[in-house]
Amino acid sequence: MGKVVTFGEILMRITPLGNKKLKQSNQLEYYFGGTEANVAISLSQFGNKTEYITVVPDDFIGSAVKSYLKQLEVNTDSIINLNHPLGLYFLEVGAVMRSTKISYNRAHSAFCNIAPNMVNWDEALEGCEWFHWTGITPALTENSYLTLKEGLKKAHAKGINISADSAYRKDLWNYGRNAKDVLGELIALSTIFIGGVNEMNEVLGTDFERTNEDFITASKLLMKEYPNIKKVADKRRSSLNANWHKIISKMWDGSQFLETKELEITHIVDRIGTGDAFAAGLIHGLMHFDNLKALEFANAACAIKHTIEGDANLLSEKEVLNIIEGNLTGRMIR
Amino acid sequence: MGKVVTFGEILMRITPLGNKKLKQSNQLEYYFGGTEANVAISLSQFGNKTEYITVVPDDFIGSAVKSYLKQLEVNTDSIINLNHPLGLYFLEVGAVMRSTKISYNRAHSAFCNIAPNMVNWDEALEGCEWFHWTGITPALTENSYLTLKEGLKKAHAKGINISADSAYRKDLWNYGRNAKDVLGELIALSTIFIGGVNEMNEVLGTDFERTNEDFITASKLLMKEYPNIKKVADKRRSSLNANWHKIISKMWDGSQFLETKELEITHIVDRIGTGDAFAAGLIHGLMHFDNLKALEFANAACAIKHTIEGDANLLSEKEVLNIIEGNLTGRMIR
Amino acid sequence: MGKVVTFGEILMRITPLGNKKLKQSNQLEYYFGGTEANVAISLSQFGNKTEYITVVPDDFIGSAVKSYLKQLEVNTDSIINLNHPLGLYFLEVGAVMRSTKISYNRAHSAFCNIAPNMVNWDEALEGCEWFHWTGITPALTENSYLTLKEGLKKAHAKGINISADSAYRKDLWNYGRNAKDVLGELIALSTIFIGGVNEMNEVLGTDFERTNEDFITASKLLMKEYPNIKKVADKRRSSLNANWHKIISKMWDGSQFLETKELEITHIVDRIGTGDAFAAGLIHGLMHFDNLKALEFANAACAIKHTIEGDANLLSEKEVLNIIEGNLTGRMIR
Amino acid sequence: MGKVVTFGEILMRITPLGNKKLKQSNQLEYYFGGTEANVAISLSQFGNKTEYITVVPDDFIGSAVKSYLKQLEVNTDSIINLNHPLGLYFLEVGAVMRSTKISYNRAHSAFCNIAPNMVNWDEALEGCEWFHWTGITPALTENSYLTLKEGLKKAHAKGINISADSAYRKDLWNYGRNAKDVLGELIALSTIFIGGVNEMNEVLGTDFERTNEDFITASKLLMKEYPNIKKVADKRRSSLNANWHKIISKMWDGSQFLETKELEITHIVDRIGTGDAFAAGLIHGLMHFDNLKALEFANAACAIKHTIEGDANLLSEKEVLNIIEGNLTGRMIR
Amino acid sequence: MGKVVTFGEILMRITPLGNKKLKQSNQLEYYFGGTEANVAISLSQFGNKTEYITVVPDDFIGSAVKSYLKQLEVNTDSIINLNHPLGLYFLEVGAVMRSTKISYNRAHSAFCNIAPNMVNWDEALEGCEWFHWTGITPALTENSYLTLKEGLKKAHAKGINISADSAYRKDLWNYGRNAKDVLGELIALSTIFIGGVNEMNEVLGTDFERTNEDFITASKLLMKEYPNIKKVADKRRSSLNANWHKIISKMWDGSQFLETKELEITHIVDRIGTGDAFAAGLIHGLMHFDNLKALEFANAACAIKHTIEGDANLLSEKEVLNIIEGNLTGRMIR
Amino acid sequence: MGKVVTFGEILMRITPLGNKKLKQSNQLEYYFGGTEANVAISLSQFGNKTEYITVVPDDFIGSAVKSYLKQLEVNTDSIINLNHPLGLYFLEVGAVMRSTKISYNRAHSAFCNIAPNMVNWDEALEGCEWFHWTGITPALTENSYLTLKEGLKKAHAKGINISADSAYRKDLWNYGRNAKDVLGELIALSTIFIGGVNEMNEVLGTDFERTNEDFITASKLLMKEYPNIKKVADKRRSSLNANWHKIISKMWDGSQFLETKELEITHIVDRIGTGDAFAAGLIHGLMHFDNLKALEFANAACAIKHTIEGDANLLSEKEVLNIIEGNLTGRMIR
Repeated sequence: MGKVVTFGEILMRITPLGNKKLKQSNQLEYYFGGTEANVAISLSQFGNKTEYITVVPDDFIGSAVKSYLKQLEVNTDSIINLNHPLGLYFLEVGAVMRSTKISYNRAHSAFCNIAPNMVNWDEALEGCEWFHWTGITPALTENSYLTLKEGLKKAHAKGINISADSAYRKDLWNYGRNAKDVLGELIALSTIFIGGVNEMNEVLGTDFERTNEDFITASKLLMKEYPNIKKVADKRRSSLNANWHKIISKMWDGSQFLETKELEITHIVDRIGTGDAFAAGLIHGLMHFDNLKALEFANAACAIKHTIEGDANLLSEKEVLNIIEGNLTGRMIR
Repeated sequence: MGKVVTFGEILMRITPLGNKKLKQSNQLEYYFGGTEANVAISLSQFGNKTEYITVVPDDFIGSAVKSYLKQLEVNTDSIINLNHPLGLYFLEVGAVMRSTKISYNRAHSAFCNIAPNMVNWDEALEGCEWFHWTGITPALTENSYLTLKEGLKKAHAKGINISADSAYRKDLWNYGRNAKDVLGELIALSTIFIGGVNEMNEVLGTDFERTNEDFITASKLLMKEYPNIKKVADKRRSSLNANWHKIISKMWDGSQFLETKELEITHIVDRIGTGDAFAAGLIHGLMHFDNLKALEFANAACAIKHTIEGDANLLSEKEVLNIIEGNLTGRMIR
Repeated sequence: MGKVVTFGEILMRITPLGNKKLKQSNQLEYYFGGTEANVAISLSQFGNKTEYITVVPDDFIGSAVKSYLKQLEVNTDSIINLNHPLGLYFLEVGAVMRSTKISYNRAHSAFCNIAPNMVNWDEALEGCEWFHWTGITPALTENSYLTLKEGLKKAHAKGINISADSAYRKDLWNYGRNAKDVLGELIALSTIFIGGVNEMNEVLGTDFERTNEDFITASKLLMKEYPNIKKVADKRRSSLNANWHKIISKMWDGSQFLETKELEITHIVDRIGTGDAFAAGLIHGLMHFDNLKALEFANAACAIKHTIEGDANLLSEKEVLNIIEGNLTGRMIR
Repeated sequence: MGKVVTFGEILMRITPLGNKKLKQSNQLEYYFGGTEANVAISLSQFGNKTEYITVVPDDFIGSAVKSYLKQLEVNTDSIINLNHPLGLYFLEVGAVMRSTKISYNRAHSAFCNIAPNMVNWDEALEGCEWFHWTGITPALTENSYLTLKEGLKKAHAKGINISADSAYRKDLWNYGRNAKDVLGELIALSTIFIGGVNEMNEVLGTDFERTNEDFITASKLLMKEYPNIKKVADKRRSSLNANWHKIISKMWDGSQFLETKELEITHIVDRIGTGDAFAAGLIHGLMHFDNLKALEFANAACAIKHTIEGDANLLSEKEVLNIIEGNLTGRMIR
Repeated sequence: MGKVVTFGEILMRITPLGNKKLKQSNQLEYYFGGTEANVAISLSQFGNKTEYITVVPDDFIGSAVKSYLKQLEVNTDSIINLNHPLGLYFLEVGAVMRSTKISYNRAHSAFCNIAPNMVNWDEALEGCEWFHWTGITPALTENSYLTLKEGLKKAHAKGINISADSAYRKDLWNYGRNAKDVLGELIALSTIFIGGVNEMNEVLGTDFERTNEDFITASKLLMKEYPNIKKVADKRRSSLNANWHKIISKMWDGSQFLETKELEITHIVDRIGTGDAFAAGLIHGLMHFDNLKALEFANAACAIKHTIEGDANLLSEKEVLNIIEGNLTGRMIR
Repeated sequence: MGKVVTFGEILMRITPLGNKKLKQSNQLEYYFGGTEANVAISLSQFGNKTEYITVVPDDFIGSAVKSYLKQLEVNTDSIINLNHPLGLYFLEVGAVMRSTKISYNRAHSAFCNIAPNMVNWDEALEGCEWFHWTGITPALTENSYLTLKEGLKKAHAKGINISADSAYRKDLWNYGRNAKDVLGELIALSTIFIGGVNEMNEVLGTDFERTNEDFITASKLLMKEYPNIKKVADKRRSSLNANWHKIISKMWDGSQFLETKELEITHIVDRIGTGDAFAAGLIHGLMHFDNLKALEFANAACAIKHTIEGDANLLSEKEVLNIIEGNLTGRMIR
């Protein structure tokens, strides 16, 4: 099997312990995250070869990033060193009806100083079977957009599977480009669309509702506009409160509508990166299983990530398969 | 807007981590608390000017108390230094059906050594719009009772709003006075009564039941006996177990009965100080909103305090308003 | 009242904090555990005299084990020192649908190097009213089986009550003996069988189902084959997921079937040692109460252990009685 | 060998981590201490039978105290429960030229509520070979003085060895008695005086200087006034700064002057309880060795206590002997 | 006495625990620092009125900054909120011959987005007796330089004392201006120069050596070029290694050369902010004492800061005076 | 440059925090170590390609071991999985004159279950330039000895440099072979001997003294008996106490005696693995520098390892070179 390549910004998450506010304690924990890194890590835990391309500073922080990725068996050979700080975010973790708050410090990060031709795409895409990108990357800077487009074009030309997690975040698009246009251009090069009605509305300029019917109709329309797209998949979250969610996933695979069982997470440990866990589960599933099993695998991966501290899903393929076989009680394994 | 003044004892809470028993670990955390301090702090977080009057030792512990209050923007100018230790309590935090246990060390605290004329009430009440007291203070010593009465008389004479949280605790009344008499005397000087049927029964010598009807009847009777009281408000807690509560609030405002929606806290982080969060929410609400919105605000403040570590509600007015606007799922704010 | 004696292996539990995986952090916590030690400790917390017999290394680790037991008022006079390491296990704590994982390091422990005649049973059983053993001990090595048999024979000859927690774990029986035969031989010397249909099937070679009817039939058959057995008792666990369980207990006391109310633990703190808490509760109950109250006590002890960090139930008789009196909301005790 | 009995107040030490000031962090550590408890614990670590008499509250704090003592093999049978809080002190740990600061909360502790006839001295002194007291106890309250005197008289009558650590602290003597008179009365009943020129000056009303000559002259005078005293021993500390001390000890044994080698502690871990470690070392030494070896043992015990966290010396006789055999480089023991 | 005003950037220091490298642990501690903030805080601990002007983000991080300053009694009324992240730095703490490493993330901070006219200097300088600035501020951006110059001109016009800590750091001067020119322009407005031969060489373009003679000659030359400067003071550090330093200070006061005793810090706790502690000590000293005592106070403040965790000197005037009175052994204060 | 291969047992180090004894706290930290792993890690930090061969369990503990090695860029492709527990040791860290204590649990570890033919030596030694072994490995079991011999023979046949760290530990040789014979046989295949007079005495059966003269004579004799040995190198430690050491190194390179400057570590952070840091420094030095610089590099690597937490030297070549260039004051790097 070929490797999966992802490209994007890695961030350091810095957070007070438990549910404390920053001003309540001078103790912190950190994790590395970033949606494309999380996807690569989860895929390596499932047993796939992966490579992650990003930019880090050339000091002990960049060294810690690479150590983290190597520890989790993600290839770091194409990572670029630039003398700019790592992007990071502070997190105050909420509970029940109290919101979790995030404060970003990423606008002038090492990654935001990337420029076209810095990444050796030919080398990076050698032996690549799947390329994954998200809408965060083209939202950051003109250059991160252009660099991603370079890569996508090369991947497309090589016939590599390309999954697009559109992940639209209005706050990020500050450098002048129109999100709809840019995302459309990049989705046109992709084969799998990860997102739901909201994300399709953003790209299509439509206003479908969050029903299964509209999901199907929107998917068909998306595939019509972007004929390279062969499948649309999404997880849907119902939140009782910050600690208690349900997850169900759906897919339009070009010919039929698939839907998983709903999984309930009554005691969330960490909800960051659960969408990335879904994406990684989907990619792994589509590489190894049929569509329905792939979707169930993605849904289970998303659900079980809520029980893992940190940004990435660290569980094995076997542990996720265990969930879709119906073992939901978390019984002890001696 | 004028300031809110509160008066009472500040305590240090000392607790093992998590759900450990004291003998299980030598690691501890501490917080400062005390009902009137918690009310002042919450009101300052809502954007009000506040002043808190208490007694602390003249050493690094008293200095830490003042730092804590200053950090949270409570004026400490009237705080008295006495060469006696700070009152404190140890807490073993229970779970589910296991009770939380408290062991007090407060009977000979700095605050219990207060004496009349130590507080310069004229200075402290200058520019004061609201004075808040609780039944803990007159329960401690003859002198804390007399000092509070001094303050209440001055506040009453100045036409300041006075809220009384009767907070009856049988264990405290050990210095010889009768709780019913003392509380009655002080409630007579107050304009808002915070408490429910149990508290009114204590003051009135009645035995009303915990129904809405009885709440109304009791409130009317209370207002008859203490005609300065214009409103009676209370929160009502239903406990599934130590981790899972529901909170609903009600008010008799002299002419009508008001009741809030019920809020459910499925994963309690810290339940200490939730009654104080209600009181602070009520005072803020009555200073800024109509009665019903004030009650909803108080109920939401009480509920969301269950998600905050430590004794005081550290959330802003905006965060509490967010709850009463129906945003109960704790969604992430980036 | 005479003392309760238990015999078995003590283990050190080593675990990353919270729900972290071992590779995520170099911080760990440890607890001492082991089913028979947990039973002795819980019984000492209930106010009984207890003695625990085990083997520990003659160094700072063995010294820490004895300190732990002494701290919790278990007599350690019969503990043997051997120059072999303490058995231990690593624990990664799961959540919701993620399984908790255990990795053992016990096969060559100090306890596994025990040999017959090392324990001075006559001395250890002096003044003994109750002897408790579990199926873990005879599963470890030929010598641990023989040493236990020595003790059981002496205890039987002295007319001491003997409780057998059959605790069948297939993975352990590696030294050549057949579990069914060995357990049968030892149960024949015992007076109380702690276990359910699964455990009775293992011993009897039957295949009863997990119904109350089959529990009764199986119990009768067991008592017929092992006429010293006078009662069969078991707790039954329903798991919503790793954080949320229900516990109900049942007994066949030779003439009637008894069943408790079901207790729900919505937020589990630590589920290790909950079966041991049941056994200790049952022994204490049978020593002090009637059968039904004993069973309720055992069920409540099991349930409330889920709220205690570490392997042993550290709560007092009064705290468990409080549960069976229906106080399930965990209200604060000041 | 008979047991050693000590009597005095146990205190909880509460301290921020590292060198932090209390206001810098809400994390704390606690230890139990108190000079007479520390002596009993160290003696039990050396292998002696010990009993400690004190007063603790009848709640989870008192229970934690007893657990601590039991863990370290000190008999707690004579400990009294009173419904008053445990005495405690807060500690901010200095470094180099920054002073460590202590803030006490002990004036109304459980121990300070002791009264004559509460201790059953006859029972407590059965099988007692040595009784140890310090000047802290009679300094606290009239009743603690009277209770100690009760015990000393009984011990004296039984011909038990009695060591007096005069430990004069001016701040404590607030209840009306004159320190010189009270200490004199109690020293008159004692056989060993632990203290140096300063302490003897306090008791004798003299003004000897800190020279060896004056130490000898003062000791002779003390023995003349208090003829039961047979030996005077003291450790002498030279402080480069808060992290770096030297310890040397000296004794007048009635006929000759003895002095130890000086031990240097270049990196102090915890200096609390080092005087108590000296006292325990001296008592153990005098019970088991000749005078010079006893003094060397006491000096080494004092020095090595500076490397132990917490209030009590937890090292074994063998570990202390190792020091006086000249093994000062702390080489690893595998 | 009037207040002391300082102006500059506040930074968050983020550091792994102990001597760990970032990649060794995900646990961190944070402190707020920044040279001018540290000076203001130390001056407020000495009992002076202080105000600190900076820029912070308008979120929970900016709120934590203000809480920190308020806690330590620094007036925050003139602090500006801008929607840019807080500057920060990561610190790996070395030991002995291993260097401490710092990685900055400050180039696009909130403070670096300051612009002229944002600070209301007239308001901020009302009642101001002393203004303190460092060479960090004009090194950051054109606008931070211009804003500082605005303030200095106003302060100069009002006849306020102005201390200049030239703190030349070559790495910072990246925005186009020449350090020598800019610093000269600002020093011309100042009355006290804090720095040694190196700093004077930088400003004067000379190459004096680090001898007392050259210090005097350089000081005279500096005063000739910048006649507003009335005194030059500096601390001089001798480092045995990262844990063991000596500090001595010297001053040319316009007519004579003053030098302090040398203080030795054998066990450094935290060396960040020790230069700021010197500056604060000097300012406090010159406001309250004669020149020599001021210099001794500054030297002692610098030395004792090495024993405090975090960036700012938290000790009181009394604690520093204690050092210059020769109390260097850090004896315990009960 | 070719890779360096090391072979041996990896161990988990488990230790209470700070200087606590195990019984004082249930908090622990863990590190992975083992002398040959430490050498490989340090060499990878210096920029060399490395491979480490060991045996680990096939569970989350083995997975954590591999993650640790990968994080630090050691190739793990030849690591064997066996279903036996990881060897480990507990460490109580002493201070000053208090000894550090180690308690091992390694006798039945996964590594001790290795057998000949399990390691594919041909594959592992492909591209290998240097092979490093220590005397720990042949001391463990017959099979670990035989497996090492397999590897050494292959390496010898390929003309690979082989360094032997004889590391004689009497306690380990329990399986029946004679240490002198076995070590001699393996040294005969090696080219560099790492050890001093003590180690040579052990192998040669001599009793040379710890003088430079005897070191030279012993080295010559060793080279005569084992003519493949071309160099003998050793570090020499002088311990003031557990916190304060000096390190000096010497070499007989076949024709001349070399000796380094002595380095002083006044505040040791962690002394485990300092000998391994020397070995790695020597190998790196001999691969890249002349003999004297190699020895200075090894000595500096050994010294600076004392400032790193954990078992392995994590510093870069540049950081070690910095020491031998005389930069010993640990000055801050911004």
